[in-house]
Amino acid sequence: MEEKQRAAEEGGEEERKGWARKAWESIRAVRERSPLVQCITNFVSMDLMANTLLAGGASPAMVHCLQEIPDFTPHADSLCINIGTLSPDWVLSMKASASLAAEKGRPWVLDPVAVSASDFRMTVCLDLVQLRPTVIRGNASEIMALSSASLGPNKDFQWAGESLFKGVDSSHGTMDAVEAARSLAQRSGAIVAVSGAVDVITDGQRVVGVCNGVAMMQRITATGCAVTALIAAFVAANPSNPFEATACSLSIFGVAGELGMDMAKGPASLRMHMIDSLHGLDEPTLLSRVNITSLSG
Amino acid sequence: MEEKQRAAEEGGEEERKGWARKAWESIRAVRERSPLVQCITNFVSMDLMANTLLAGGASPAMVHCLQEIPDFTPHADSLCINIGTLSPDWVLSMKASASLAAEKGRPWVLDPVAVSASDFRMTVCLDLVQLRPTVIRGNASEIMALSSASLGPNKDFQWAGESLFKGVDSSHGTMDAVEAARSLAQRSGAIVAVSGAVDVITDGQRVVGVCNGVAMMQRITATGCAVTALIAAFVAANPSNPFEATACSLSIFGVAGELGMDMAKGPASLRMHMIDSLHGLDEPTLLSRVNITSLSG
Amino acid sequence: MEEKQRAAEEGGEEERKGWARKAWESIRAVRERSPLVQCITNFVSMDLMANTLLAGGASPAMVHCLQEIPDFTPHADSLCINIGTLSPDWVLSMKASASLAAEKGRPWVLDPVAVSASDFRMTVCLDLVQLRPTVIRGNASEIMALSSASLGPNKDFQWAGESLFKGVDSSHGTMDAVEAARSLAQRSGAIVAVSGAVDVITDGQRVVGVCNGVAMMQRITATGCAVTALIAAFVAANPSNPFEATACSLSIFGVAGELGMDMAKGPASLRMHMIDSLHGLDEPTLLSRVNITSLSG
Repeated sequence: MEEKQRAAEEGGEEERKGWARKAWESIRAVRERSPLVQCITNFVSMDLMANTLLAGGASPAMVHCLQEIPDFTPHADSLCINIGTLSPDWVLSMKASASLAAEKGRPWVLDPVAVSASDFRMTVCLDLVQLRPTVIRGNASEIMALSSASLGPNKDFQWAGESLFKGVDSSHGTMDAVEAARSLAQRSGAIVAVSGAVDVITDGQRVVGVCNGVAMMQRITATGCAVTALIAAFVAANPSNPFEATACSLSIFGVAGELGMDMAKGPASLRMHMIDSLHGLDEPTLLSRVNITSLSG
Repeated sequence: MEEKQRAAEEGGEEERKGWARKAWESIRAVRERSPLVQCITNFVSMDLMANTLLAGGASPAMVHCLQEIPDFTPHADSLCINIGTLSPDWVLSMKASASLAAEKGRPWVLDPVAVSASDFRMTVCLDLVQLRPTVIRGNASEIMALSSASLGPNKDFQWAGESLFKGVDSSHGTMDAVEAARSLAQRSGAIVAVSGAVDVITDGQRVVGVCNGVAMMQRITATGCAVTALIAAFVAANPSNPFEATACSLSIFGVAGELGMDMAKGPASLRMHMIDSLHGLDEPTLLSRVNITSLSG
Repeated sequence: MEEKQRAAEEGGEEERKGWARKAWESIRAVRERSPLVQCITNFVSMDLMANTLLAGGASPAMVHCLQEIPDFTPHADSLCINIGTLSPDWVLSMKASASLAAEKGRPWVLDPVAVSASDFRMTVCLDLVQLRPTVIRGNASEIMALSSASLGPNKDFQWAGESLFKGVDSSHGTMDAVEAARSLAQRSGAIVAVSGAVDVITDGQRVVGVCNGVAMMQRITATGCAVTALIAAFVAANPSNPFEATACSLSIFGVAGELGMDMAKGPASLRMHMIDSLHGLDEPTLLSRVNITSLSG
C-alpha cells in the first residue's frame, strides 16, 4: 500500500518534471521567436499586457483600428481579443481581425471579461466564439456563464452576480467549472482555460490543473488579461501544441507571481517584482517550480 | 491661559481620535462589503484607479459603454464619473449612468478634472451637477471655477489659467476655496471636497479639514482621480454618512501616501509604496495618523 | 601622434562638457517654467508619458477631444502627437491641434509609431508632416520608412517587417538611418531624432549622437513615446534652440535610465527607478553622465 502510494507520487513527480521541461522549452521558444502579438484589449490592461508580453520575450502591438486590420493582422503571429471595455466600433475590429487570423491559420485567444455583465457583452462574446478561437481563458464565473449561454437560444439577460468583479478570480472555484469548460471546449473547438487557485485547462478531452501563482495576484488589476496575452504569445511560438502551450504559460505566469511574492510588500510591489521575475526566469528555477498535473485521463 | 489652551488641544485631540475611529470603521466596512464601483473615467487614470480600489478593498469595474449602462449600473454599489478625457459619446454614458444611479438611490461621485480647460468640459460638468452627485471632488481651481459657473447664465468661455494642470493641486490654496465649496454644496446638494495641502470637505454647513498626505503625491499622475474613486467606494460601504465617509477616505489615502513616502525615493516608488500601504493599512497605524479637524461649527 | 590623439580626446571631452552644461541648463528651464504639454497619444503610453513629464518638471495634459482643441491648444506651451493607437476621429484632433500650434508659433513634436504598419498610418503621418512639426522622433525603421515615403507619390502599401515592434528599438541601427533622417529633416523642416543604442539628432545639416541609456529600456513599453513627450517639454522651455533641446532631452532620459539600471532587477523596477531618477536628477550627476558628440560638421 505504502509502496503503491510512493509509486503514484513518483509517477506524479515524473509527470510534473515532464511538464516543467515542456514549460522551459515553451518559454525558450517565445524568447527565440519573439512572436508579434496583436492585442485588441481593454484600456485598463494595455500597459500591464504590453509589459508582460515584453517581459515574456514577445513583441506586443496594440492595434484595434478597423482601417488597419487588413494590413496588420496578416503579419501578426497571434491575436489576443479581450472584451473588458467593449464598444460597438471595436467589436467590428475584433470580428474582422479574428476572421482574418482564422483564415490565415494564425492562433487567436479570447478573454471574455465579465461576459455576463451585460446582454451586449454576452452577445458579442457568443459571436466571437463562432469565429473559432484557439483558446478561451476566463475565471470560473465567466466560463460557466459563457458555456451555458453558448448552449441555448439567446435568453433574456440575467445579471450574473458581483462575483465577476471580485478580482481576477471569481466566487466559483475552478473545480466547479470543469464540466462547463469541457463542454464549451467540445462545442467551440477551443482549448478552454479557467483561472483560479488551481487553473484548469481542457481541450474537451484532457484536463490538466496548474497549481502556481499566489492569491495576491487577484488584487492587481489586469493580471487575468495579461496572462491571456501571454497565452497568445506561447501558442504562437509553440504552434504544434496549443494545449500544452496554454498550460505552460499559465504555470510560468504563476511562477513569476510566486517569485515576485517573495520580494513584495503588497499588490503594487508584487506587480513590479512579478514582471521582473518573468523577464529573468531561468531554467533551474522554472524546473523546480512548475506544478502541472493531469486531472483526468 | 495655558490651561485653556491645553484643554483646547485636548479637545482637539479628542476630536481627532473620534475621526480616526470613524476612519477605521469606514475602511473596515469597505473591506468587508467590497463595494462594486463603476468607473467612467479618463484613460490616464484607469490603471491607478482600479489598483487603488483593489488596494482599498473595493471591486472596480470600468464600464463606460452606453449599451451596457442599463444592464450594469443598477448592480453597481456606486459610480465614479471623471471628465479627464472627455468625448461626446462618453458624455451620453455619463449622463445615462448618473441618472440611473440617482434613480436607484445609489451614491455617485463627480471629478470635474480641469473643468475650465474648455467650454465643452464646463458645459458637460454643469449638466452632470444637475444630476445630483453625492460628492464632488476637485482641486481648488476646479471647485472655484465650477462653483462660479454654476451660479450664473452660461458666460462665454474663459481660459482659467495653467494652474489646472500643475499637478493634482492647483495654484489656489484650498482655504481660498472654502466659500466656493460651501456655496456649491448648498446649491447642488452634494458634499464638496477640495483637495490640497489641507483637504477641505463641506456639506454646505459643516466644514472639516484633512491634514494628511505628502506634497510628492502631486507629482504622480491620476492621484486625484484615484482618491475620487476611493470616495465612491467609501460612500457605498458607509451609506448612512457620506460626509464622514468622504473625509475619511481622503484622510486614509493621505495616510497611505505618508507611509509610502517613508520608503520612497521619488514619485514612481511613492506610487508603488502608497498602494502597498493602502492595502496593508492596520488599525494602530491608522488611529495614530488620521488628522481630521472641524474648521467651523 | 599620441599628442594629437590626446588633443582630439581633450577636444572631445571639452565638447562633451559643453553639451552637459547645456543639458543642465535645459532641464533647469523645464523645472522653472513647468511647460504645459498637450499630448494626443496612444492609450498604452498615457500613464508613463504623464509621469515622465511630471518627473521631468513639466505639466502634462492629455487632451484629444476635437471639441476642446480650439479652447485648449492655444494655451499649451507645446504639443506632442503620437500615432500609436490611431483612429479616424483622433486624426481630426491631431490635425486641428497641430495646425493651431503651428499657427500660434508653438512647437509640436511628432512620434510616427509603427508608421509602416498600415497604409492608414502612413497616410496620416505624411499629412501630419505637412503641418510642419518642430521635431520628429522615431526608431530607425520608422524614420527610414517615413523618409522614403515622404519622397514620392504614395505607393501601394508594403509591410515593413516585424522590426517595428521589437521593442523601442528597431532592427536597423541608427547609423543606417542617418542619411534618411537628414533627408527627412531637409524636406520637412523638422529636427529629426532617431532613437537607438546611439540616438542620432539632425536638423538636416548638423548631426549629433547621444550615447546614453541602457538596452533594457527597450523592454519597457512606451519609453519611446515618453521621451518624445519629454522632447516636447524641452523645446517648449528652451524655444530658442530646439535642436539642442532635443539632443539634451534624449540624453537626460538616457541618464535617468542609466541611474535606474544601477538599482533595477528587471524592466518593471527599471521603469520605476528611471522615473525616480529623472525626478531627482542633480547637476553633478548630470554633468558627469551626459554623452553627446558631433557626428559631422
